[in-house]
Amino acid sequence: MKLVTYRASVEGEARLGVIAGDLCVDVAALGAAFEVDLPDSMLGLIDAGRPGLETLADCLEECDGRFPLGTATALANVRLLAPIPRPRKNIFGIGLNYTEHVAESAATLDTNPDLPREPVVFSKPPTAVIGPNEPILHDRSMTKQLDWEVELAAIIGTRAHRVSRDAALAHVFGYSVMIDVSARDNRRAGQWIFSKGMDSYAPFGPCIVTADEIPDPQGLDLWLTVNGVEKQRSNTSKMLFKVNELIADISRGITLEPGDIIATGTPEGVGAGRVPQEWLWPGDVVVASVEGIGTIRHPVVDNSPAEA
Amino acid sequence: MKLVTYRASVEGEARLGVIAGDLCVDVAALGAAFEVDLPDSMLGLIDAGRPGLETLADCLEECDGRFPLGTATALANVRLLAPIPRPRKNIFGIGLNYTEHVAESAATLDTNPDLPREPVVFSKPPTAVIGPNEPILHDRSMTKQLDWEVELAAIIGTRAHRVSRDAALAHVFGYSVMIDVSARDNRRAGQWIFSKGMDSYAPFGPCIVTADEIPDPQGLDLWLTVNGVEKQRSNTSKMLFKVNELIADISRGITLEPGDIIATGTPEGVGAGRVPQEWLWPGDVVVASVEGIGTIRHPVVDNSPAEA
Repeated sequence: MKLVTYRASVEGEARLGVIAGDLCVDVAALGAAFEVDLPDSMLGLIDAGRPGLETLADCLEECDGRFPLGTATALANVRLLAPIPRPRKNIFGIGLNYTEHVAESAATLDTNPDLPREPVVFSKPPTAVIGPNEPILHDRSMTKQLDWEVELAAIIGTRAHRVSRDAALAHVFGYSVMIDVSARDNRRAGQWIFSKGMDSYAPFGPCIVTADEIPDPQGLDLWLTVNGVEKQRSNTSKMLFKVNELIADISRGITLEPGDIIATGTPEGVGAGRVPQEWLWPGDVVVASVEGIGTIRHPVVDNSPAEA
Repeated sequence: MKLVTYRASVEGEARLGVIAGDLCVDVAALGAAFEVDLPDSMLGLIDAGRPGLETLADCLEECDGRFPLGTATALANVRLLAPIPRPRKNIFGIGLNYTEHVAESAATLDTNPDLPREPVVFSKPPTAVIGPNEPILHDRSMTKQLDWEVELAAIIGTRAHRVSRDAALAHVFGYSVMIDVSARDNRRAGQWIFSKGMDSYAPFGPCIVTADEIPDPQGLDLWLTVNGVEKQRSNTSKMLFKVNELIADISRGITLEPGDIIATGTPEGVGAGRVPQEWLWPGDVVVASVEGIGTIRHPVVDNSPAEA
């Protein structure tokens, strides 16, 4: 299933939806029509676990493409929000997780040219999350090196504490797309949370594809364009640490919980690694995509303080 | 006011309390007795803003030390939890924020000997939080360099976006004590979230003292002992970046929100900086205190996986 969080009207509440062709079906309304309990938010569905997903799948099957009155809206006529508009903790980010990106990063940033022996974990606060089409904010008083990074995001479905690599993928609820926007000139003593965690630096969407539809997350093309020019193109097969290894590794020390998001790292082609270097500026448009999930598009807009 | 989160019985729900001498007064129950609306959680009180604190203060004044039946329990007879048992996002940590600690860190870890020009920000996930007397978990398969860091924690009361240094302290709800437990051998490409963010690595408590009682957070003694031996003793006057500067700085890029926690950095005397180096092991007891707030005590216990 492709799950979204959306608004059906300008003033409307955020709703949980499931995509059916060119329709967006209101999950809670569908449940009401079938007199079964279905949640009205993505985190609610994640918390409902496998029974929640099964109930939803049963309802969809029973509909067979004809949805009860008032439950479906044309997808073209809704506004998609970030699939989880407000995560319950910081997003886990993974740095230096594609070989060629390790090389380009070492050449132009201050990172080590050797491949990391363990996943490099950092975080982005929930306040960084924006949904499809929302602007990436450029503050010229803060950065002159705003960069892009397309990533596959894994969303945790069930609590994971000291799980094995073999068992790890069973803890994934689904997958999405995230851009790990990075102000390269804001690393502090090497720490990345500030350079990667500013408001709007985590574009996220357009949907979460449930894990059953992506049995192998390591064979997905991903790409990113700036103003229509392709800057990144790779495949998740080239990750150094696979999704199952990331989950197993983090869960050795940090318990992962339902709704947690892991942005799994970016391939080569970032602005910092180009000769000459390229950066994002107001007026640019960034488009990012992961195969089988979808595409997000974000304008970069000036948000500098008045005095800057 | 000294505010706590507590359980009055083993099975009981977490409650919001206010300390009155040797009593712990149930804030929501007090509100019910006075037929006014008072929240039952610390985040609820923070969200209620100044009116919530004023209502609570009015009730306490009216009581004049005699509390309505069923609202007060002997403080000695409750179990204190972390003041905010479940933060809504990762805790903001500040590294290298006391001069002498910058020096000891550069001598024994891989940090720069120069004083940082901007605050060094990292984060600790909500899953790291433990309350008073709860054990710090030692996993010998993960670390042989578990270290202590006593810190003043500032809790944000109102949304802060691009606030000035002069206006910053008005955004503080109150102050508490946090130990920034750190597994020095788990830094990865220099990133600290994993080494400082494992389960139980954020002991937090025993209370939050409201900001009105600490008009100047830069004149507080803080200290830490291990097995009764003093390891750290300093004063918050020695911070490189004061609390108001930290808030102003972070809020330039990252919007701070009610309930956010900033652990403001540790002074010299950590285990990594000693000759020879000293580390925490199962059986040790760590006690940490900040003047005017209180003291937390945490045993270190073995939590290694069976196969380790």
